[in-house]
Amino acid sequence: MSTFVKSIENLINEFKKLPGIGPKSAKRIVYYLLKQPEHDIERFAGAMVDMGAKIKFCKICFNISEDEICNVCSDQARDRAKICIVEEVSDVAIIESTGEYRGLYHVLGNLLSPIDNIGPEEIKIPALLERIRGSEVEEVILALNPTVEGESTATYIRKILKPLEIKVTRLASGLPVGGAIEYADEITLGRALSDRKEF
Amino acid sequence: MSTFVKSIENLINEFKKLPGIGPKSAKRIVYYLLKQPEHDIERFAGAMVDMGAKIKFCKICFNISEDEICNVCSDQARDRAKICIVEEVSDVAIIESTGEYRGLYHVLGNLLSPIDNIGPEEIKIPALLERIRGSEVEEVILALNPTVEGESTATYIRKILKPLEIKVTRLASGLPVGGAIEYADEITLGRALSDRKEF
Repeated sequence: MSTFVKSIENLINEFKKLPGIGPKSAKRIVYYLLKQPEHDIERFAGAMVDMGAKIKFCKICFNISEDEICNVCSDQARDRAKICIVEEVSDVAIIESTGEYRGLYHVLGNLLSPIDNIGPEEIKIPALLERIRGSEVEEVILALNPTVEGESTATYIRKILKPLEIKVTRLASGLPVGGAIEYADEITLGRALSDRKEF
Repeated sequence: MSTFVKSIENLINEFKKLPGIGPKSAKRIVYYLLKQPEHDIERFAGAMVDMGAKIKFCKICFNISEDEICNVCSDQARDRAKICIVEEVSDVAIIESTGEYRGLYHVLGNLLSPIDNIGPEEIKIPALLERIRGSEVEEVILALNPTVEGESTATYIRKILKPLEIKVTRLASGLPVGGAIEYADEITLGRALSDRKEF
């Protein structure tokens, strides 16, 4: 690329930083953009700046929002007796897409990790407690990934919520719908067995 | 995504248009960007606008350039007796990366396709002829893809150059270096046989 122009190299370098985009994809994307009308490129760049400038985090649940309070928290039709705890903003979108949940959220933004100096403060636990105290919340649903950090964060939150006498639940583990028993790992299969339901 | 904010949806839609990026990757990229500092996002968008505004096409060879004349055409050290004809600007980058070629280029931008109304004018053939006439060009190298359109464009260019009595060559066909005979398709293997070289 040495004979190439600086502005193209700069943009290739920016695309290379994105998750899932390697040097070849980055080049391909930039060559694609080169063929687009200038106003299309400007609209794309504008959408990026616009998002960067407009997106805040909801003061209540730390979900993304263009306002102080996010769409979910400000929606009076939502079930205010339930808070679903997720790690990432993107998890909210995934759970919303199931259409199965009508409660509120609390986005941790991270998981507890003493090695990385991520303690309860960093994952908004004090804000969660404050939110729950004196509220109508009856159930906290832990929707954290079944990793070591996810499990220990879930355990920590369950412990800290104990004195508040709130129902704490977690997502069911088991076989994926349509998944075959022979392809399931032992731990998932074990969970599916111990959590079996009457049929 | 219905509960989601407009500025995020807009940006996801922009990313979805890029080659090789589906709805899931687009979301993943946008959630990644959400976590980046605002000035990083602005720098990215700036690189995009900058490229869109700065990139022109070389008046001689139609390669991309920040100036009227591209880096290759203006480089006095290049071999001006050779013009390599390619379809895309990105092909120039690929050929440059081999380090095997020191001549000039001519970027068609497309291939002949009567169905799509792409004739010689659209692929800069008149400009090519004008460039060659009265110049020191001795050889035109056809580096077009071995597709139906590529082959017919190559054939057309060879025919049109005939009266100028210039050497017209094409890239060698054959087995990929390191490729096994058993995995080669019959046409490639046939070409490799008919184009065999003394060893």
